[in-house]
Amino acid sequence: MVLMTGEEYIESLKNRGPLTIYLLGEKIENPTEHPIIRASINSVALTYDLAHDSVYTDIMTAKSVLTGNKINRFCHLHNSTDALQEKVKMQRVLGQLSGTCFQRCVGMDAINSVFLTTYEIDKEHQTDYHQRFTDYVKLAEANDWVIDGCMTDPKGDRSKRPSEQKDSDVYVHVTERRDDGVVIRGAKAHQTGAVNSHEHLVMPTLAMRNEDKDYAICCAVPADAKGITYYYGRQSCDLRRLDETEAGDVDCGNPVYGGQECLVVFDDVFVPNERIFMNGENEFCGRLVESFAAYHRQSYGGCKVGVGDVLVGAAATIAEYNGVEKASHIRDKITEMVHLNETLYSCGIACSAAGHKTPAGNYLVDLLLANVCKQNVTRFPYEISRLLQDIAGGLFVTCPSAQELSNPETREIVEKYLVGVEGVDTMDRVKMLRLIENLTLGRAAVGYLVESMHGAGSPQAQRIMINRLSDLEEKKKLAKTLARVDMDEPK
Amino acid sequence: MVLMTGEEYIESLKNRGPLTIYLLGEKIENPTEHPIIRASINSVALTYDLAHDSVYTDIMTAKSVLTGNKINRFCHLHNSTDALQEKVKMQRVLGQLSGTCFQRCVGMDAINSVFLTTYEIDKEHQTDYHQRFTDYVKLAEANDWVIDGCMTDPKGDRSKRPSEQKDSDVYVHVTERRDDGVVIRGAKAHQTGAVNSHEHLVMPTLAMRNEDKDYAICCAVPADAKGITYYYGRQSCDLRRLDETEAGDVDCGNPVYGGQECLVVFDDVFVPNERIFMNGENEFCGRLVESFAAYHRQSYGGCKVGVGDVLVGAAATIAEYNGVEKASHIRDKITEMVHLNETLYSCGIACSAAGHKTPAGNYLVDLLLANVCKQNVTRFPYEISRLLQDIAGGLFVTCPSAQELSNPETREIVEKYLVGVEGVDTMDRVKMLRLIENLTLGRAAVGYLVESMHGAGSPQAQRIMINRLSDLEEKKKLAKTLARVDMDEPK
Amino acid sequence: MVLMTGEEYIESLKNRGPLTIYLLGEKIENPTEHPIIRASINSVALTYDLAHDSVYTDIMTAKSVLTGNKINRFCHLHNSTDALQEKVKMQRVLGQLSGTCFQRCVGMDAINSVFLTTYEIDKEHQTDYHQRFTDYVKLAEANDWVIDGCMTDPKGDRSKRPSEQKDSDVYVHVTERRDDGVVIRGAKAHQTGAVNSHEHLVMPTLAMRNEDKDYAICCAVPADAKGITYYYGRQSCDLRRLDETEAGDVDCGNPVYGGQECLVVFDDVFVPNERIFMNGENEFCGRLVESFAAYHRQSYGGCKVGVGDVLVGAAATIAEYNGVEKASHIRDKITEMVHLNETLYSCGIACSAAGHKTPAGNYLVDLLLANVCKQNVTRFPYEISRLLQDIAGGLFVTCPSAQELSNPETREIVEKYLVGVEGVDTMDRVKMLRLIENLTLGRAAVGYLVESMHGAGSPQAQRIMINRLSDLEEKKKLAKTLARVDMDEPK
Amino acid sequence: MVLMTGEEYIESLKNRGPLTIYLLGEKIENPTEHPIIRASINSVALTYDLAHDSVYTDIMTAKSVLTGNKINRFCHLHNSTDALQEKVKMQRVLGQLSGTCFQRCVGMDAINSVFLTTYEIDKEHQTDYHQRFTDYVKLAEANDWVIDGCMTDPKGDRSKRPSEQKDSDVYVHVTERRDDGVVIRGAKAHQTGAVNSHEHLVMPTLAMRNEDKDYAICCAVPADAKGITYYYGRQSCDLRRLDETEAGDVDCGNPVYGGQECLVVFDDVFVPNERIFMNGENEFCGRLVESFAAYHRQSYGGCKVGVGDVLVGAAATIAEYNGVEKASHIRDKITEMVHLNETLYSCGIACSAAGHKTPAGNYLVDLLLANVCKQNVTRFPYEISRLLQDIAGGLFVTCPSAQELSNPETREIVEKYLVGVEGVDTMDRVKMLRLIENLTLGRAAVGYLVESMHGAGSPQAQRIMINRLSDLEEKKKLAKTLARVDMDEPK
Repeated sequence: MVLMTGEEYIESLKNRGPLTIYLLGEKIENPTEHPIIRASINSVALTYDLAHDSVYTDIMTAKSVLTGNKINRFCHLHNSTDALQEKVKMQRVLGQLSGTCFQRCVGMDAINSVFLTTYEIDKEHQTDYHQRFTDYVKLAEANDWVIDGCMTDPKGDRSKRPSEQKDSDVYVHVTERRDDGVVIRGAKAHQTGAVNSHEHLVMPTLAMRNEDKDYAICCAVPADAKGITYYYGRQSCDLRRLDETEAGDVDCGNPVYGGQECLVVFDDVFVPNERIFMNGENEFCGRLVESFAAYHRQSYGGCKVGVGDVLVGAAATIAEYNGVEKASHIRDKITEMVHLNETLYSCGIACSAAGHKTPAGNYLVDLLLANVCKQNVTRFPYEISRLLQDIAGGLFVTCPSAQELSNPETREIVEKYLVGVEGVDTMDRVKMLRLIENLTLGRAAVGYLVESMHGAGSPQAQRIMINRLSDLEEKKKLAKTLARVDMDEPK
Repeated sequence: MVLMTGEEYIESLKNRGPLTIYLLGEKIENPTEHPIIRASINSVALTYDLAHDSVYTDIMTAKSVLTGNKINRFCHLHNSTDALQEKVKMQRVLGQLSGTCFQRCVGMDAINSVFLTTYEIDKEHQTDYHQRFTDYVKLAEANDWVIDGCMTDPKGDRSKRPSEQKDSDVYVHVTERRDDGVVIRGAKAHQTGAVNSHEHLVMPTLAMRNEDKDYAICCAVPADAKGITYYYGRQSCDLRRLDETEAGDVDCGNPVYGGQECLVVFDDVFVPNERIFMNGENEFCGRLVESFAAYHRQSYGGCKVGVGDVLVGAAATIAEYNGVEKASHIRDKITEMVHLNETLYSCGIACSAAGHKTPAGNYLVDLLLANVCKQNVTRFPYEISRLLQDIAGGLFVTCPSAQELSNPETREIVEKYLVGVEGVDTMDRVKMLRLIENLTLGRAAVGYLVESMHGAGSPQAQRIMINRLSDLEEKKKLAKTLARVDMDEPK
Repeated sequence: MVLMTGEEYIESLKNRGPLTIYLLGEKIENPTEHPIIRASINSVALTYDLAHDSVYTDIMTAKSVLTGNKINRFCHLHNSTDALQEKVKMQRVLGQLSGTCFQRCVGMDAINSVFLTTYEIDKEHQTDYHQRFTDYVKLAEANDWVIDGCMTDPKGDRSKRPSEQKDSDVYVHVTERRDDGVVIRGAKAHQTGAVNSHEHLVMPTLAMRNEDKDYAICCAVPADAKGITYYYGRQSCDLRRLDETEAGDVDCGNPVYGGQECLVVFDDVFVPNERIFMNGENEFCGRLVESFAAYHRQSYGGCKVGVGDVLVGAAATIAEYNGVEKASHIRDKITEMVHLNETLYSCGIACSAAGHKTPAGNYLVDLLLANVCKQNVTRFPYEISRLLQDIAGGLFVTCPSAQELSNPETREIVEKYLVGVEGVDTMDRVKMLRLIENLTLGRAAVGYLVESMHGAGSPQAQRIMINRLSDLEEKKKLAKTLARVDMDEPK
Repeated sequence: MVLMTGEEYIESLKNRGPLTIYLLGEKIENPTEHPIIRASINSVALTYDLAHDSVYTDIMTAKSVLTGNKINRFCHLHNSTDALQEKVKMQRVLGQLSGTCFQRCVGMDAINSVFLTTYEIDKEHQTDYHQRFTDYVKLAEANDWVIDGCMTDPKGDRSKRPSEQKDSDVYVHVTERRDDGVVIRGAKAHQTGAVNSHEHLVMPTLAMRNEDKDYAICCAVPADAKGITYYYGRQSCDLRRLDETEAGDVDCGNPVYGGQECLVVFDDVFVPNERIFMNGENEFCGRLVESFAAYHRQSYGGCKVGVGDVLVGAAATIAEYNGVEKASHIRDKITEMVHLNETLYSCGIACSAAGHKTPAGNYLVDLLLANVCKQNVTRFPYEISRLLQDIAGGLFVTCPSAQELSNPETREIVEKYLVGVEGVDTMDRVKMLRLIENLTLGRAAVGYLVESMHGAGSPQAQRIMINRLSDLEEKKKLAKTLARVDMDEPK
């Protein structure tokens, strides 16, 4: 059953028990058939299909450290700094080919961080979480699961801690402890690919204090578990995908692929003991969050770079279509886009190459450099997007509907006036403009811009980490030594 | 009839002859009733209503230099550097109150530039364009017209001049010269507020050479002239406005106001002599374009600043709703937003204060500083928008539909988990998030970002002007004098 | 005696009583003859000479509002928004012609702020400071004084207030109150042009509390008052000016003009009553500091722009000398330098045009925009400088000494290899390179970069003011109205 | 003789034959004794001493791939991507400990690029350059040489190619071909550490055409070869180092270490055959330049990062000394400095990790990422420096001479007023301020700023490479596929 195809993956989603999903005011019965959801499923399906593609199979698969089997890299426990780099390269490829968020990274990052954390908890508390979790990873590998790494709580009033909230449910927590397991309640917000997942791997959202022990829960539940409801998040221009005509495809820009974020509500969901990987060991929440965040901040040095490649390609193409590709300022702006994009990639590669082996045996990225990577991701995609808008000209936001290009009554005139250079089909020019709209304002902009800002932690979260990891004492010594300041001075 | 109200303005639109308008594949019969168009009309109507509002009447109106009547400032020939500053202040107010593009500036900027150019043509060619145009401005004032300043041609292959294009119609030009007038053909792209206008003031789009004399045409035609067709431009998230329920309003973010850009096609439209203001005097195209561009680049130092104020306000509000308004990094980011926004305003004010009287008698902004103003507008709104997205958190792109908040089946749970600080209605928090989406990705982002980039000329157009106006020879002398370089050196 | 020439000014400095000045470990007897000091005096002298130059006299002089006499604008009480703009234009001219800090602005800004503040103190306290100060300004005008606006205290431990410091002298304060005056002690740091001044106008450095009343002292003392000592500040590359040969001139880059900053120590200096303008009215310290800072932040929108013009000119010249002036990237970088520089100028003009009349009758700049102006000054000169270094090539930091170009033994070879394009004297190329070094790393960089950062208040001081003046409540209302948030909600 | 100490290295310099060196108008007889030169020698000596330091020996040394001996890493042919990373780490350490340019990298980068290029020439031309060069590298290893990688010609008129110059000597070229070798004439500018070297490895400065064959010369000559003259480049604040008192040390900021750049003139210097590594094979000049540039652009991702660490340390230290280290804006600025610095480091590491084995057997960095690395180095150090100046306050450019702090007459008063927080010696505060001046305006700024800009190629050189290596065709395909543009369209 290892290495499903995209089609098998979609079939496996249908084989789940019924999910309760709300989207645009309606309860959705067949999520795999809904055009908005389907586009997001297509992105995930690509992670399966490419594993079978001879061009990509090496980068898309790995040899399991648990079983020796060939598995999808998204289920892999990274076992070297090379493997960490391979991960980034895989993500870049998928960003290039989907032009959007393909949703499967968060689970990969979650299993690697839970793996190393459970080992450390067991060592301290003589618990058996690590063995449980190792068994769980084996299942994930064997079933080629999409796992939703389920971390971010809604948080309510952000000036208050979990136990201080008016409604304690704004953080997921244990409401009942039974012999055979626990019951959890609460919600996770912004859940990437939640509806397209087989499993949710629930993790605490921040370092917890002793009074927050009920919130220190890490566990796995199937996507179709009793008590879970999905509230599908709206995206910019989402309604365009409801028009499934050819013209509708054009106005989508990227008609096939899309992202997905949901609010996932856990209304007293039962978790059996074998799926509990932390239960009250609050002093390890910080380690789990910090390592998960680091892996996921590394991820953005791959996936966003891949989407960035599409923006560069769109810039170069539309410049040609407009007849300006030789203008020195256009060439310079494209060079700047490439420069910024490759700087992000450099950060993704560097935190991988500087990674190290954890006590549990898998490899963790360099924490400082991973945070530096993500901090740049909160900036450069915005500038890359701005440069693309500059190069494109204004037509991508003033262009008439593609329906006008299909309608025989209007088609000829609209084509006549939307023409670019000779030899380029006007419809192709419009398609490229709509892709640019999609990437910089539309559905893909949600992933390329806002997710770049807030996914894997908002910018300030990285700044706090960078500050903490910057070893200022050592650097002060360097300056004092050079200036010949006496370092035994009383202070 | 001077100083219509918003309601009277909308009535006046209905009183036009029938317009041929295509939108989303359909021919629109009653544009003022179409929800997408109506939102854009509301923005224009605000320019009328505020003229009657005692708080704003001073800034919204002026005393006509032609008749002495009290007129809407949008029809005014600016008669001092103070009047130029008042214009900018008016635009800031309207940006603040509409949160989007209110579409009427382009006509104001057009009449001021045609006014000064016709004077200069007449002086050279002993033509009577200036008197004709003065009469036209009197009509505009008396009828309180919205005029579409109609400049940008589609341009086809941008590496070629008008007369080199495969299809010469991609630039508007004269196809027939008759005793009583001319016939024009072609199209104007990106026409802001075209469908909401009473008149189009057609202008050439760039400096023309002798071989392009047919393209050197400036003239006015009514919006309902025979031969004109409007192709309505799609905007990001445009379909949301089709849902006219309360929840639909919420998901619009800014439910009342919107912008508008159209492709306007002139299919052999007749222009009588009294509405022709340039006809083949190609050597004055540059002057017209340059002065129009300068006025319009000044405009952006007002209108975009007003919208920027809304982004600042949204940032401060959502920070409170999230409970983070006292965090030092949040305060600092809001300060940066204000700083950037006021820098733009400074540029708008400065090019006005440094303006000068033209031979025709009206005042023109300082050309260099107006270009500097617009150049900054192509940058800072993007950073202001990025900062707002940073402050907002990610919920503005993952929030479920407001229908989920109306649906009794889902309302309670969704409200429970979208809650912010105590005392703030969750629906209000969602409304603010949707406004932020509207401003940074949605319908208003078209105006606040892409129009800031390309409206009034793309960034490179300003750089060419800045370079041309920078007087490098004088500056080289300064450097040489200080370095004691002998300036009589042979070179 | 009004309107001295530069020569008369230097004579007037010699006519002062003896000053105690330390420079490079030595007590300086004849400051006007010392080459380092002399260069700084030359800059001030320019403010006198230009007042007699027919090209500049209009901008350099004004009609006194106190006497109606024609006076140097540096002694002027600005009496309109036009006058505020004239001030900025004068400063730009002086920056252009000196290429450095000409030191006389701080006194001009001080008299305008003390003038308006004394009026307000008197109104509250029935004191007669304003009349005293008006008389003082008349003397300043009549004697064409250079006044050192003497504000910044050394401050010791910046985490503590004046009265909490271990040594209270780190803030200037009154140590004795007598019938005929007061005695002050302490020091002022970073005093621009202190040694080149006729008078010091001492002002408190920050808002003072009731316990700090002794620090709330504003008064004037002559530069040669008993008890004052000057410690001359070192500047980058200061020693180069000690070589007064021709080659030494070359290696200075800007051989004639320089800036000056001193530590001025007041060791129990007596101040007679008629020169006391605030004495314990601590609640007005904030007003004085805030208005002085605003005037001085405006100033930087003039003087730094003038120096910026020199950097632009140096860039254009060296590009020609290197043979690269037509390269598109070079042209674009020069355009960017101009753009940034004119943005600063726009800010200087805008805060002037938006100024207002004070109760005392003189005009004050717009506080918000003046702070915005200075905030940009803390950034753009650094980028302009960086661009100049980019355009220059690396030779400006690796070029052999000009002595090698004078020495017959080495001259021919060095000239041969430092050659640029044909027709340009190699020595001229070297002079231009040294000017670039002077402006971006050397003596002038102290003024163009570090003074841009910290003069008139460090960046954070402006951010605090921008935040305070940003009227967030009003902006929140704008956002809430558009989003249709109910504003009567309980909060 | 392998692995000299610093002292032995200085001795070896003295053992060279006499060098002709001009500095500040004088011929220097004992360069190792001249205080300005000595500081630059100290930096190089550090690369020797650390090889013997147990803390650093692993990073400072490597196992020769030619002999298996333990050698200084500066003589190493990098034999893995790990070795490329080790190089960067070594450079960071040296930047940290010297706070300036330590001059030895350019030789290391030169031997690696000549090694791979000679292999490729031989393969094409059946020459024996590679064996010759391998022998030369063995000598370099055995003698632990400092090699000056001697590439940049003065270039005269940059709009002309070598053979078009008025004086052909502005590019080094062969003037005579003899049986036993060649004679070369010309000069190399900006030669880092030239006077402190044992050897010069002369390389062509750009891709050469057939008509430029005489300029396609790569060869080695000893530093004391007959016909070589050195013209020592002036640096900002260089004269401060002439004061060798304690106060003089203080005012240097970094009293021990400095950088060095020279103009090196080759006046008909003979080169024996065994030291010729390219002689007219002009089609390989591009390969040599490109690979050398790539190695050296990688280098800056190490050495400048190390100096950046010193700036961070100086910022943290002076913030403490001023009593402001807890202010949130100070902490945030230090975080930003760290972030930018670590981004540079990420780029240095990434281009190493992505390196590949060359046909010659040594490893070459990834060309695209190495150029991206250097491009960032032309920007971020300027911002890091600006932030340090912001944090420092203005005193570092207005502080009186340290002589005033030694002079008993002035010492007490100056100390009293330059005091910072309690417990910190005022002299230590002054030392730290002077270090900040040294790093951002003074002698070290030459290396940290201007060398970051122009060393290893000016910014435009990297942009050209980034553009060339960006594979736009592949990226256009990505965009077209997503937008469903038919890619068989005729174009």
